[in-house]
Amino acid sequence: MGDNIKVIIYGCGVMGCKVARALLDKESFEIVGAVDINPELVGKDLGDVLDINKKLDIEIEKDAEALFSKTKAQAVVHTTTSYLKDVLPQISQCVKAGLNVISTSEELSYPWKRHPELARELDEFAKKEGVTVTGTGINPGYLMDTLALMLTAPCLSVKTVRVTRMMDSSKRRVPFQKKIGTGMSQEEFREKIEKGIITGHVGLLESINMIAEGLGWELDRAEELPPEPVVDEKEVETVLGRVPPGNVIGLTSLAYGQKGEEKVINLEFCANAAVDEEYDEITIEGEPNIHQKILGGVHGDVGTVAVTINTIPRVVEAMPGLRLMKDLPVPSTTL
Amino acid sequence: MGDNIKVIIYGCGVMGCKVARALLDKESFEIVGAVDINPELVGKDLGDVLDINKKLDIEIEKDAEALFSKTKAQAVVHTTTSYLKDVLPQISQCVKAGLNVISTSEELSYPWKRHPELARELDEFAKKEGVTVTGTGINPGYLMDTLALMLTAPCLSVKTVRVTRMMDSSKRRVPFQKKIGTGMSQEEFREKIEKGIITGHVGLLESINMIAEGLGWELDRAEELPPEPVVDEKEVETVLGRVPPGNVIGLTSLAYGQKGEEKVINLEFCANAAVDEEYDEITIEGEPNIHQKILGGVHGDVGTVAVTINTIPRVVEAMPGLRLMKDLPVPSTTL
Repeated sequence: MGDNIKVIIYGCGVMGCKVARALLDKESFEIVGAVDINPELVGKDLGDVLDINKKLDIEIEKDAEALFSKTKAQAVVHTTTSYLKDVLPQISQCVKAGLNVISTSEELSYPWKRHPELARELDEFAKKEGVTVTGTGINPGYLMDTLALMLTAPCLSVKTVRVTRMMDSSKRRVPFQKKIGTGMSQEEFREKIEKGIITGHVGLLESINMIAEGLGWELDRAEELPPEPVVDEKEVETVLGRVPPGNVIGLTSLAYGQKGEEKVINLEFCANAAVDEEYDEITIEGEPNIHQKILGGVHGDVGTVAVTINTIPRVVEAMPGLRLMKDLPVPSTTL
Repeated sequence: MGDNIKVIIYGCGVMGCKVARALLDKESFEIVGAVDINPELVGKDLGDVLDINKKLDIEIEKDAEALFSKTKAQAVVHTTTSYLKDVLPQISQCVKAGLNVISTSEELSYPWKRHPELARELDEFAKKEGVTVTGTGINPGYLMDTLALMLTAPCLSVKTVRVTRMMDSSKRRVPFQKKIGTGMSQEEFREKIEKGIITGHVGLLESINMIAEGLGWELDRAEELPPEPVVDEKEVETVLGRVPPGNVIGLTSLAYGQKGEEKVINLEFCANAAVDEEYDEITIEGEPNIHQKILGGVHGDVGTVAVTINTIPRVVEAMPGLRLMKDLPVPSTTL
C-alpha cells in the first residue's frame, strides 16, 4: 500500500501496545518503528511484545532520535505519561525530526492554561518544523469536551454545560481499579489523596478549558476538587476481592468552571464497582436545551485507543502547530 | 467591533429571516446586506421584514451581483431552495464575488453523488476564487450524518450505522405539517407522493453518502424509499383540525446504504402528530457498540438556524473549495 500513513510507536506500555495491535488491523496505517526506554523491552521485536505470535521485524529502540534519523514516517503515536513537563522532551524530539505527534498525554489535550509558556513554545516549534501536535484520548479529548462542544452546534446560545461519565470500574483493568482505591478504608483513601498517590481522573481541567475556549467563554475560576471515595452499605464483590461495607469501591471526581458566581461548566467523573447503569451524559442548558446520553457508556481503554488512532489522519492533514481536538475536523473511524 | 464576520443574507424567506434575527443577537457577526427576488420584499428595510420594530438601514436588494460589488463581506448565508440545479447560479454569483457561502440547500450538503459534475465544477470554481462553499443545516448536515460520524470516533471498527429522528410534528410550523400530509386521506397522500407534491424529508441520500465517505465505505447501493403515511386508530387533534382515524397524521421516510446484501447505513425520519417521545437516536454496531440518544430531540428550525450560524466561522477559516461538514472542525455555539 503506497498511501497508508507510516507510524512510529513511542512508548510500548499497556496503551502503546493496545494502539499498536489496533493499528496492525487497519489498512490505513503501517507501523514502521517503536521506541521505549524500558530495558526489558529494548531490543525485542515489537511482535513478541504485542504477543501476536509473529515477528514484525521492528526492533524496539531506546534512542528515539537515532530511530527517527533512519526511519521515514508521518506520525508518532506517543503514549508515555500524563504530564506535559515529562513528555515535552520526547515530543520535541518528534517535532525536531519533522514528525506529527498524536499523544495520549492528558495535559497536552489543552496545555494553554496549566502551562501557557510551554504551550506557546511547543506551538511555535511545531509551526517552525511544519508539523502538528495534538493530545487526545477518550477523555480528555473526546467524551467530556470535544463531543460536548459538538452538541452545542444546534444551539443559538448556551448557559451551562454538564457532563457526567458513569463507569462500572469492575469491567476495567485491575490497575485501574487499584488506581481508584478499590478495597481501601476511607482513611487510607484520604491519606493517599493527600499524598497524591490517588489522583482521580487526570484531565478534567483540560476539558473545562477546552469547552470554555470553544464557546468563547472567559472563566473567572476553574477548579478540580479532590476525588471523593464511593462506599456502599453492602459488601461488594470485585476482582480484587470482597469489599466490606463502608470501604472504598471507587471514586468521584468533580470539576467546574465558573463565570461570576455561576458554575457554567460541570464535569463529573464517576467510577466504582457498584454502578447500576453505565452512561456518558451531556446536558446543555441553552436555546434549545440538549440532553444526550450514550447508553452503556464508552469503554475507556478501547475508546482511547480508537480516538487516538482515528485522530492520526486529522493530525497529519492539519495546519502545523499545537492543535486542539476542537480545532480538527470531526474524527471518525478509519479503515 | 472590528473583527466580527460581515454576512450577507441571500434569501429572506422564513429560514433567511430566522437566521437574520439570530445573527442580530450575536456579537460575532454583522449583517451588511440582504438579497431576495420576491417583489414584496425588494426595496424594504430588512428590519421591517424581520418584524423587529427597528430599521437596520439594510435595503433588501433584487440584484445580488450589484449588492456584492458595493458591499464588503466575508460570508453569505444562503437559504433559497433545496435543489442544487436551482441554487447553483446564485451560489456561483457569491463565489465569483469572493464570498464564502453557507447554504441550507440540502443537496449541497453532499453533492458528489447526485451531481458529481456540478460538484466538481463548483469545487474548482471555489478553489480558483479562494472561497469555501458548504451546505448544512440540522439535517442533512448535522444530526443524521456529521454527528453520526463523530460518534464513530471511539470505535476501532464499524459494521452498521443507524439513525432515527422521531419528531412530534404538532410542535412544528403549520407549513411543515401540511408538507407531511397531515389530515389527508391515505389515497390523497399516495397520489401526492406519486406526483412529487409530497417529497418527504430532503437529504437522506446526502446523509448516507456523507457517512459512507467518512467511513471510507464504497456502497453498492443507496436508496431512499417513498415516504409512508402514518395513521392512528384514534382521532388525533392537530392545529390543522381533528384528523379522523385512518387519515394521515404524518410520515416516515426510510433510506439505506448497502454493501453487498447488507444494509450498513439505515436512516429513518419520522414526523407525525401522535409521537409519544421525541428523540434523535444513533446506534453504531462496531467495536465497541455505541448507542446514543438525544432525549427530547432537537427542534428542527432552531437547530437549522443554529447549525448554519455556528458553521459560518468554520467556513470562513476553511481551505477554499466545496467543503463537507465532516471535513470542517467540530462546530459549536458562537457568541
